[in-house]
Amino acid sequence: MICLADQLRAKPYYVHPLGEFASTLGAAKSTISEDLAALRLTFEHFGLGRVETLAGAAGGVRYVPRRDPSRIRVVAEELAERLRAPGRLLPGGFLYTTDLLSTPSIAERVGEAFATYFADRRPDIVLAMEVKGIPIALMTARAFNVPIVVIRRAGRVTEGPAVTVNYVSASSRTVQQMALPLRAVREGQRALFIDDFLRGGGTARGVFDLMREFRADVVGVGMFIATREPERKLVEDVFSLLRFEGADDRGNAIVRPSEDVAAIHAG
Amino acid sequence: MICLADQLRAKPYYVHPLGEFASTLGAAKSTISEDLAALRLTFEHFGLGRVETLAGAAGGVRYVPRRDPSRIRVVAEELAERLRAPGRLLPGGFLYTTDLLSTPSIAERVGEAFATYFADRRPDIVLAMEVKGIPIALMTARAFNVPIVVIRRAGRVTEGPAVTVNYVSASSRTVQQMALPLRAVREGQRALFIDDFLRGGGTARGVFDLMREFRADVVGVGMFIATREPERKLVEDVFSLLRFEGADDRGNAIVRPSEDVAAIHAG
Repeated sequence: MICLADQLRAKPYYVHPLGEFASTLGAAKSTISEDLAALRLTFEHFGLGRVETLAGAAGGVRYVPRRDPSRIRVVAEELAERLRAPGRLLPGGFLYTTDLLSTPSIAERVGEAFATYFADRRPDIVLAMEVKGIPIALMTARAFNVPIVVIRRAGRVTEGPAVTVNYVSASSRTVQQMALPLRAVREGQRALFIDDFLRGGGTARGVFDLMREFRADVVGVGMFIATREPERKLVEDVFSLLRFEGADDRGNAIVRPSEDVAAIHAG
Repeated sequence: MICLADQLRAKPYYVHPLGEFASTLGAAKSTISEDLAALRLTFEHFGLGRVETLAGAAGGVRYVPRRDPSRIRVVAEELAERLRAPGRLLPGGFLYTTDLLSTPSIAERVGEAFATYFADRRPDIVLAMEVKGIPIALMTARAFNVPIVVIRRAGRVTEGPAVTVNYVSASSRTVQQMALPLRAVREGQRALFIDDFLRGGGTARGVFDLMREFRADVVGVGMFIATREPERKLVEDVFSLLRFEGADDRGNAIVRPSEDVAAIHAG
């Protein structure tokens, strides 16, 4: 049963025919079915996600990694608390988050939160901007069992013909470029953009422009942190895990779980 | 039992006191012990890693993610086969690997292979060079339950004081720079360097120089692919998953699992 759980979780969203398990595990189909029923209840009980059975010729069983909303709220609150600690606020109003984003167990929980929130969007790829957002984007991609595509800042593409777009970074107020190799995204693909920090939304807007060139759709934007100001962002419909509201009178960051997190429901 | 497995695998190498499980799972210690014994056998049987019990005051149980050597060889052979396909060989003798490295399930299996090979080195951090090696480095870090530290190419560090070293890239024959924020690595830390491609070893040599500045130790170098030529690399004791030997007469890449992979033993 452990092994069934392992195979299901190794490939989220992939529909395993029952016969596949029977042959790799050397067990009767009836035993597999009983084990799956028990797994379904266990996963549900502990908020580990769903085990779904699909009927028909293309049927089988698949694992959908939805985390329990209350658990996501706990993760968000723990992260907010760590970001409120002294020394996190950097010159220029930036927040030091690299150590958290670079810890695999944290990146994994953040990725699972995004995968839960965006479960209905069914992305084909997860987009990341180099460099800091890559770990949380990869863990989101892992939860959807889809590839990650890393957008490069211009002048660094080494893999043949590329598409380049300009964007205005609200933080630096300069025109910059982002680029992707032509072979990186196919027409009609559904892309979920995941990044670590959203202020004005200039970068995210650039990602929409870039995907338009590929005739691909941005089906969602997920941010680790979004600032409260400016309230009007250049993109709409952004899910952020945390909200960064400025500094308190001791010079520490004010960070809270976002309203989006409070609104996640079990679905 | 599924939940026990989940908690163990979420934090490899972390020693869970038995009481912790008893309280979070609401079960008696004797039940937990029986379940752990069953888990140990199951993990062993399916080559999922080891469940180890540590006695004493700081004792408890931990999960060590060692994959079965025969399974690692299968993964390496599958990847080599995909890299031998037409269209992979790029101008300049490069190999198109981005799509594989960017697929989370592949990055995960590669990371587990590195974690198995380097299990005895006990790294405190996993080092990656931006950008392409990040997914496999992150998955290696995940298997060791340690943070990843991403080395930036110079001129791109935005997080305060940094240490910069020069290195000679054997591929481009130019002097380049790599940099890390001072706060990224602490004195005495054990660093495992993971990257996607090794030709002459100039970059890896630079990583050794960089860690010397931090008074940290490089305890291992793991590469997704190493070229056969030049045979003499600038660094010794490199583990590579695949060996890239040039082009065949149809212009496809010649790629095989490395001799290192054949030499992995169950340990």
